[in-house]
Amino acid sequence: MSRQSWKGAALLNPAPPVLVSCGRADGTGPRPNLITVAWCGTVCSAPPMLSISLRPERYSYGIIKEGGVFCVNLPTRALAKAVDWCGVKSGRDVDKFAAMGLTAAPATAVDTVLLAESPVNLECRVTQLLPLGSHDLFLAEVAAVDVDESLLDAHGKLHLEKADLLAYCHGAYYTLGKRLGGFGWSVRKRPKAR
Amino acid sequence: MSRQSWKGAALLNPAPPVLVSCGRADGTGPRPNLITVAWCGTVCSAPPMLSISLRPERYSYGIIKEGGVFCVNLPTRALAKAVDWCGVKSGRDVDKFAAMGLTAAPATAVDTVLLAESPVNLECRVTQLLPLGSHDLFLAEVAAVDVDESLLDAHGKLHLEKADLLAYCHGAYYTLGKRLGGFGWSVRKRPKAR
Repeated sequence: MSRQSWKGAALLNPAPPVLVSCGRADGTGPRPNLITVAWCGTVCSAPPMLSISLRPERYSYGIIKEGGVFCVNLPTRALAKAVDWCGVKSGRDVDKFAAMGLTAAPATAVDTVLLAESPVNLECRVTQLLPLGSHDLFLAEVAAVDVDESLLDAHGKLHLEKADLLAYCHGAYYTLGKRLGGFGWSVRKRPKAR
Repeated sequence: MSRQSWKGAALLNPAPPVLVSCGRADGTGPRPNLITVAWCGTVCSAPPMLSISLRPERYSYGIIKEGGVFCVNLPTRALAKAVDWCGVKSGRDVDKFAAMGLTAAPATAVDTVLLAESPVNLECRVTQLLPLGSHDLFLAEVAAVDVDESLLDAHGKLHLEKADLLAYCHGAYYTLGKRLGGFGWSVRKRPKAR
């Protein structure tokens, strides 16, 4: 293979294009909002923590900085249009929940709203805010997870493969494709997949 | 939808299961290694920055902490077995490049190796290390990007959709599936996709 060397760029792909919800559930304070965030990731297993990065000029930035809480709502194929739309529009101009026909429901562990149409909601409490440049990094603990029962089997086990989650890759949204194998398949004597 | 509320968990999905390479290219110091990391993400656009989280007990942790550099090599379907294997085995016990028949090539901007069989390599320089719990968070600037020319068109434009990248979701590896639309498709008058 012949390769070119370019200057640095944000080319880590694919990313999860999550819908971040914020604002109080009781109607006080700024109007709750949904913002699409692909600059995010898990950062720790114990305690469970994730990060989201936001530009300070975003409407949601101030809400999350002030409130110290937000929800990460996993994006599904059924939500694809809302995922794109909430990444383009500003909550300063429009009530995104109303405009997309979506439901803001109270979170259980933190004082904010979750997106009821998303089957998995990660309720987060900010632990640290780090300015990095164009974006500020919010580090947060996942205080609770809400899971739609349609993703659970008879034993209560989560089947996230039923959620039809989205990936974002280099400017476009994708479904997940073929399952190639589970963690550890390469060292099993009788691989179950492939 | 009826939902259950669980305690917090690291359920942000899907994630990119990248192959992180580390160790000096000149043969001095610890043996170069490849470690699979799904706890990663972009954290800033300008400057371009990403994060990876590692458990301190990992072989690669000390190498990256000491050297202050690593490469994020994007995982492709052709590398799926190596991606899984490098997440299960330890570089303390085995030369993963040799065992998987892979090539460690010198990076261009930082003193470490890249995975030659990956078509996109993000050369990173650590800017901050934050202990969080089970994992420590490395924040890093992307100093350079190496791109295989097979992904470029006649105008030199990158077509990452040709790379057949992998996603990791709740314990399993997936290809990317159907392209649903490009960023902004929901507000275009004549959507090109869907």
